[in-house]
Amino acid sequence: MTRGFYIGRFQPYHNGHHRVVEQIATEVDELVVGIGSAGDSHSTRNPFTAGERIMMITKSLVDFDLVTYAVPIEDLDRNAVWVSHVQSMSPNFDVAYSNNPLVIRLFDEAGIEVRQSPMFERDVLEGTEIRRRMAEGGDWRELVPKPVADVIDEIDGVDRIQKVSDTDAGDTPAE
Amino acid sequence: MTRGFYIGRFQPYHNGHHRVVEQIATEVDELVVGIGSAGDSHSTRNPFTAGERIMMITKSLVDFDLVTYAVPIEDLDRNAVWVSHVQSMSPNFDVAYSNNPLVIRLFDEAGIEVRQSPMFERDVLEGTEIRRRMAEGGDWRELVPKPVADVIDEIDGVDRIQKVSDTDAGDTPAE
Amino acid sequence: MTRGFYIGRFQPYHNGHHRVVEQIATEVDELVVGIGSAGDSHSTRNPFTAGERIMMITKSLVDFDLVTYAVPIEDLDRNAVWVSHVQSMSPNFDVAYSNNPLVIRLFDEAGIEVRQSPMFERDVLEGTEIRRRMAEGGDWRELVPKPVADVIDEIDGVDRIQKVSDTDAGDTPAE
Amino acid sequence: MTRGFYIGRFQPYHNGHHRVVEQIATEVDELVVGIGSAGDSHSTRNPFTAGERIMMITKSLVDFDLVTYAVPIEDLDRNAVWVSHVQSMSPNFDVAYSNNPLVIRLFDEAGIEVRQSPMFERDVLEGTEIRRRMAEGGDWRELVPKPVADVIDEIDGVDRIQKVSDTDAGDTPAE
Amino acid sequence: MTRGFYIGRFQPYHNGHHRVVEQIATEVDELVVGIGSAGDSHSTRNPFTAGERIMMITKSLVDFDLVTYAVPIEDLDRNAVWVSHVQSMSPNFDVAYSNNPLVIRLFDEAGIEVRQSPMFERDVLEGTEIRRRMAEGGDWRELVPKPVADVIDEIDGVDRIQKVSDTDAGDTPAE
Amino acid sequence: MTRGFYIGRFQPYHNGHHRVVEQIATEVDELVVGIGSAGDSHSTRNPFTAGERIMMITKSLVDFDLVTYAVPIEDLDRNAVWVSHVQSMSPNFDVAYSNNPLVIRLFDEAGIEVRQSPMFERDVLEGTEIRRRMAEGGDWRELVPKPVADVIDEIDGVDRIQKVSDTDAGDTPAE
Repeated sequence: MTRGFYIGRFQPYHNGHHRVVEQIATEVDELVVGIGSAGDSHSTRNPFTAGERIMMITKSLVDFDLVTYAVPIEDLDRNAVWVSHVQSMSPNFDVAYSNNPLVIRLFDEAGIEVRQSPMFERDVLEGTEIRRRMAEGGDWRELVPKPVADVIDEIDGVDRIQKVSDTDAGDTPAE
Repeated sequence: MTRGFYIGRFQPYHNGHHRVVEQIATEVDELVVGIGSAGDSHSTRNPFTAGERIMMITKSLVDFDLVTYAVPIEDLDRNAVWVSHVQSMSPNFDVAYSNNPLVIRLFDEAGIEVRQSPMFERDVLEGTEIRRRMAEGGDWRELVPKPVADVIDEIDGVDRIQKVSDTDAGDTPAE
Repeated sequence: MTRGFYIGRFQPYHNGHHRVVEQIATEVDELVVGIGSAGDSHSTRNPFTAGERIMMITKSLVDFDLVTYAVPIEDLDRNAVWVSHVQSMSPNFDVAYSNNPLVIRLFDEAGIEVRQSPMFERDVLEGTEIRRRMAEGGDWRELVPKPVADVIDEIDGVDRIQKVSDTDAGDTPAE
Repeated sequence: MTRGFYIGRFQPYHNGHHRVVEQIATEVDELVVGIGSAGDSHSTRNPFTAGERIMMITKSLVDFDLVTYAVPIEDLDRNAVWVSHVQSMSPNFDVAYSNNPLVIRLFDEAGIEVRQSPMFERDVLEGTEIRRRMAEGGDWRELVPKPVADVIDEIDGVDRIQKVSDTDAGDTPAE
Repeated sequence: MTRGFYIGRFQPYHNGHHRVVEQIATEVDELVVGIGSAGDSHSTRNPFTAGERIMMITKSLVDFDLVTYAVPIEDLDRNAVWVSHVQSMSPNFDVAYSNNPLVIRLFDEAGIEVRQSPMFERDVLEGTEIRRRMAEGGDWRELVPKPVADVIDEIDGVDRIQKVSDTDAGDTPAE
Repeated sequence: MTRGFYIGRFQPYHNGHHRVVEQIATEVDELVVGIGSAGDSHSTRNPFTAGERIMMITKSLVDFDLVTYAVPIEDLDRNAVWVSHVQSMSPNFDVAYSNNPLVIRLFDEAGIEVRQSPMFERDVLEGTEIRRRMAEGGDWRELVPKPVADVIDEIDGVDRIQKVSDTDAGDTPAE
């Protein structure tokens, strides 16, 4: 039995992520999807809560022939303990999937196998692009699985992103 | 569609919890199992990591005819924001299940429906009792679902509890 | 112009505190009332939120011929920086009032004048005693100023304390 | 009786804020002025401590026919629990005043009435503009109430801002 | 070249610790002395600051023929990441010395060699005993190296412990 | 006996720092080297852990005729308590050395003597410049003491910086 670990912020979970998971599914029996920056929400870069992202991922993966776990991972803001933190929050895994150079280096230093996932650039671009389209009223539905669009509609997510985008960057709620 | 939320520390997940879930399953379509004090581990009161507890719960519930989510909830150490914290980490839920008077009061103040789960006293007693039996070499296997015993064996959990129990109460690792 | 600083948790603000303030009022022109452990609430030892305690204090002092500031002070859990923390949160003050030996020592080490407030033992005893009476349904109204009783009634505070008291000591909401 | 809540960072409290308070005073009986990012100070964006800002606000509002509370609110860095945090730190309020779209959205999601305050753009511009004038030796006194200028003079605030402005952006004290 | 790591709280550094270091000195070329709970001070259990403990240790070891590093380690309050935290704060080490069962288990799980240090029980007892003697005015000087007594005298440490001991257990400064 | 305190991030410790220490050595008997942002590592701005920086500094200063202490200082992210935090982590000192205007102002407000260290601009420039050269494969060895280059080689530090530089600015490990 092989269990993989795939980390991202999934703001939101989109087709690029989905294709990566399809690829990983051919290599592992079980997959932990680690939801990074789980404590962040209602910001331009992290509009959705961890709970909302769990819903997006679980509903999108429901028909996959793959045991999956969607696990929120709060930031500790300490790169040096990040791998240990992830390991304590996640079911035990054999291999991590990432294209983020820092993540690769951190797992390397901890002696954990990392495989690069395909289609990385697309993956990164789409997150930013989808949020931009939402903020500007463009068409974003084609870029995400149907269940993700349903979650976003249910929470009036486009309005949230537009409100957040009107706020000065770096502002806390308190001005 | 009704979604319930059941909160506990699940140190470990045991037969008492399992019977509560069986009961809740008759009332809801989906259930979020919130794993409290998710950042704690390797202590007398909280021996198992969040990842280990996710395994215990997911493997124990696999044959249930109920969509379940096992969601780790880290402590914020602020009762006044605890309900908001839980709501942001969890898929949206309609009703919370608890017998803890503080939890009931906090959900009450936030205007969220709480139902008392059956068999509470047994529930509380068993957590402490199981950890005591593990620490003292007694028989604990009869008190937990089979997949939980497997997880504990795999991580050599009994030895961990015994080591932790030999350490002075309240000690951080640093003595 | 002399400004004093009087620190406490005020759970709740009671007649003992009130008599101390009456005494301090003869010595200073303005008084900062620092509300300690401001982030704690809904626990046996700290049942009331900072906002509720601000109300208790402000309403009780409204007829005093003394400019007062009720300032919540969150715990930093670092005794060594506590005085600096207090100084940054409070309007500048000339003298601190306390009977707590640790507080006295910390201000001493920082070179700030501390005066012992009268009636200390009574002060400490009453906080615990009032909460005990509330938890057990005894008579507590005679021990607090009238506006404090009003605040407690408005938030159904006695019920909150009774709920909290039924919960195991040291429990976070998550059990 | 109606109590309002007006949130800002007040770095410093200036004439724009003052006019907003004058307007709010016509709508409420009591006003809580929430001082955001209360733990920050000695930076370009947040030069003044919470205690200094309490002084500015309290002294400026002393002649208003309005019961006011100046309450420091420390950042929790979690938008999802921010409203609960504010509610626990503040006396209970009926309506919040803000022009910040994120704040409006957060109160909206929590079911709390928010009213837009007048003169928002001016409000925002003045904070930055006043700090820029201080940093560059320009005339800032005309933009703040007289008691604010007194507080700033007393703490040698212009020098502080100039020192802070000479430091690389984003630097902690440790470089 | 072999480097060892010896962890303790050193409240204060005493003859028991000193004999352990003498023993370790026969096995390693360099020794990192990790000062645990470095952020704590001015409490019954942790009276001395990290800086004061660095002085005690460095001055006591000055004549040893051993390269030593005294490194403060702040608590992260997460056992699962504690080893990574220690490793990031300390020069790289080959072997850890401890008799604390939890510390041994944590290093074991991380795959790091741990050796039990001799004289453990004595070690533990002396810390508590020395603080008790200080609090009660007994003779503690015979139990610590001469430079430790000098540091304690210089900061008036006995008075600090007596003040702290008079304060209710568990109290933050704010009551 | 005079003890000085010299604060920096030392990412890495380089020849500019070394010349400052040479200068300070003529004025004090002992020197505490405070390693700021000690909890940060594996980022573009803070690539090296506190433990690695302790090694760089200690090995570089070994032949100096000066008692030195290399003390990691974790960020508290509160300028107002920063001086108290530093004082609690460091052996007691008589004079602080810095050219950072914020640091100078903070020590000034706390009544502690600060002396400007020579060669400041060079000092700042070199840290950024050395990291840039490492990231781009340029020659950085001439800019650091020999023991620093050895530490960096041992941990494969150039590769770490290059990995970190390829990661989007501001990213936590979780994307």
